[in-house]
Amino acid sequence: MDPNKKPVKVGLLGLGTVGGGVVNVLKRNAEDITRRAGRAIEVVHAAARRLDAPRICSTDDILLTTNPMEVVENPDVEVVVELMGGMRPAGDLIRRALELGKPVVTANKALIALEGGELFELAQSHDTLVAFEAAVAGGIPIIKAMREGLAANRIEWLAGIINGTGNFILTAMRDEGRDFEDVLAEAQALGYAEADPTFDVEGIDAAHKLTILAAIAFGMPLKFDEVYTEGISSLQQEDVAYAEELGYSIKHLGIARRREEGVELRVHPTLIPSRRLIANVDGVKNAVLVWGDAVGPTLYYGAGAGAEPTASAVVADLVDVVRTLTADPTHRVPHLAVVPDQLTDLPVLPIDQVKTAYYLRLQAYDQPGVLADITRILAEAGISIEAMIQKEAGEDESYLPIIILTHQVVESAMNQAIEAIEALGTVRSPITRIRVESLAG
Amino acid sequence: MDPNKKPVKVGLLGLGTVGGGVVNVLKRNAEDITRRAGRAIEVVHAAARRLDAPRICSTDDILLTTNPMEVVENPDVEVVVELMGGMRPAGDLIRRALELGKPVVTANKALIALEGGELFELAQSHDTLVAFEAAVAGGIPIIKAMREGLAANRIEWLAGIINGTGNFILTAMRDEGRDFEDVLAEAQALGYAEADPTFDVEGIDAAHKLTILAAIAFGMPLKFDEVYTEGISSLQQEDVAYAEELGYSIKHLGIARRREEGVELRVHPTLIPSRRLIANVDGVKNAVLVWGDAVGPTLYYGAGAGAEPTASAVVADLVDVVRTLTADPTHRVPHLAVVPDQLTDLPVLPIDQVKTAYYLRLQAYDQPGVLADITRILAEAGISIEAMIQKEAGEDESYLPIIILTHQVVESAMNQAIEAIEALGTVRSPITRIRVESLAG
Repeated sequence: MDPNKKPVKVGLLGLGTVGGGVVNVLKRNAEDITRRAGRAIEVVHAAARRLDAPRICSTDDILLTTNPMEVVENPDVEVVVELMGGMRPAGDLIRRALELGKPVVTANKALIALEGGELFELAQSHDTLVAFEAAVAGGIPIIKAMREGLAANRIEWLAGIINGTGNFILTAMRDEGRDFEDVLAEAQALGYAEADPTFDVEGIDAAHKLTILAAIAFGMPLKFDEVYTEGISSLQQEDVAYAEELGYSIKHLGIARRREEGVELRVHPTLIPSRRLIANVDGVKNAVLVWGDAVGPTLYYGAGAGAEPTASAVVADLVDVVRTLTADPTHRVPHLAVVPDQLTDLPVLPIDQVKTAYYLRLQAYDQPGVLADITRILAEAGISIEAMIQKEAGEDESYLPIIILTHQVVESAMNQAIEAIEALGTVRSPITRIRVESLAG
Repeated sequence: MDPNKKPVKVGLLGLGTVGGGVVNVLKRNAEDITRRAGRAIEVVHAAARRLDAPRICSTDDILLTTNPMEVVENPDVEVVVELMGGMRPAGDLIRRALELGKPVVTANKALIALEGGELFELAQSHDTLVAFEAAVAGGIPIIKAMREGLAANRIEWLAGIINGTGNFILTAMRDEGRDFEDVLAEAQALGYAEADPTFDVEGIDAAHKLTILAAIAFGMPLKFDEVYTEGISSLQQEDVAYAEELGYSIKHLGIARRREEGVELRVHPTLIPSRRLIANVDGVKNAVLVWGDAVGPTLYYGAGAGAEPTASAVVADLVDVVRTLTADPTHRVPHLAVVPDQLTDLPVLPIDQVKTAYYLRLQAYDQPGVLADITRILAEAGISIEAMIQKEAGEDESYLPIIILTHQVVESAMNQAIEAIEALGTVRSPITRIRVESLAG
């Protein structure tokens, strides 16, 4: 290594958990990182909300400020790392850095999912780049794997457990037979869930990440607004148990699938066969299953959040940026896997055109002919039944739980069938309906 | 994309299964690959053993020859892809290509494991590179993940199922209760195992791949000769069954682990807890579990062999090479993860200094005091017992099977204890001994 090569000087926006993790990892593994990057990487200037806040990292040798724009505009700062989160002022700071021709590394999934297209254009016009490995699935190098490692493939679909909080809750509901609210309270106490858990449990965080993964998988623009999003907050303990009885696990998946008519982009609770590797990804861990036409199924597993796993992705991006600084910009890895003017504006299918199998749980009056009516309606809608369980009614109940697994059907047909069944008068409304994916090909 | 950009012209050495797969993938996904690489990639010249052999790909527009050196030296050929396998003449052809300044993409694990160091030096001195993603774990982008995606980490250890044939055999032995020889014959009939299966079942192929993975993980030179290698051919069906009874699966793992005194490099049958994700990687699939100090555990799963999965890795390398052609060579991703003059020559520990837990199966005479003798010997050697099962003797047998799981101990201490137990005269020799890894941290 050329001993005259100066360290790359980094400006850090945000000194919270992840920011502190980045400082710690860069310091602890300085020698290894320098051996890999060919140059040392040093944080020289950092912005924090409060200068006197307690930190997980040492800030010796780092100039501190409460004004993040000062860091961005510091002429010594060559690369800007944004770890503040949120849309404002993060977006404006990144835009300013790009205008100054400085590459940006960010973990901000909401910002990339919503405004990434604009940021990438700005980066390109200033001959620089935005790196965002840490925005999806924490420390798992999933963006690199898809964008570079699977570059030979036409990616047919992907399915990911991309929200650790949700997966922690579902795992505890299954393994401990507990209810959603109960586990959520525990997750909040453990610090896995926010005081306002909406982003996690209603699937918005997963939708941000799915937006990014789908754009890279299919070489299409970021379309967060068109992602169908359904959370796990209304999931019942009994459905988790019945799913297990049928040989399935319920996971909160982000799914992107290529269809002839367009692409499916959806986040929802999903039954998947328990023998699948991804069905066994438990607790706060993340995993993404990617199906390429040449490689077949590949899976990437690891920590989806946390200070050091996220720092792992941020620092990997920094190493990449150091290498990229000397490359012909036209031959850099494109932000969304394909060169910018070659993005394909694939239409996103509305959810009622999506095709999946279904798990239905009905509460039917315990009287002759009800089951016959239900199966007739399903048959008339062209929905074939893969498995059915009829449960005994409890002692003082006049309703029988009936659990049905169907084969694949277009969602609009299923909606109509469900309406017809609910109109029978012999089945209690609403019918519980959870989508099923075999994830087999 | 600049429409004036000419396609990159590739010369292909070897037109067998993988070579044919590369031609097919490049043709089928030409549009997607061009969108990602920014330039088209075309095979223009290929060498095959016989010109009239039946092929899985079309060779229209490809100049064919039986002389591979002609392809290497063709001035139109900008990148050489070597898919012949074996040490000779592959090594000489690659050396010639590098001397001509042409980047090389290869799937040749034996050649990289044995002569990679020399090839990388040659590449560097001619300002070019050797890409070898396809040499390890087929279509799984494990080299990219470790070398770039985990660049922030000090990698503590890795453990991989990196031979599909072996994993197919072990999976069938477990799931179908069959013997090694029986399943091997089936694997050969299915084309998963060669007529001479030595490389696969004796762990040589896995040792090649482990050599490469360890070099990248630890930034050390390739040391194939120092890998401890033990195959699966002597594995007994009953041990597979007892392991399952204890909550373990037996997998043929390649393990590289950093220790204070050096590194462990070893390939051998290993008991791992059945609840680990990697214990559930079945059939011909591969998976590598990598533990980084910042990211924690990450796992990469997919097809480890086959025409198209291997082609997936070869073509991904081609896309990388196209991008790298315009980069400052000093800032390229280094072959073994760290810049060449910064490799650390870590000592490889001899197997008797390796520390693992053990599974022991003893056949003891059915007489009082035998068990007491065994446990005394283990205790005196400082080996503590985690679990023990004593089986009933069969009707006409005077031997009792005793199965013991120990805690971690240095292998030399275990060897001494086993010798002492065998000397008792009340235990049949040899004692079956399989290493156990928790893979937990």
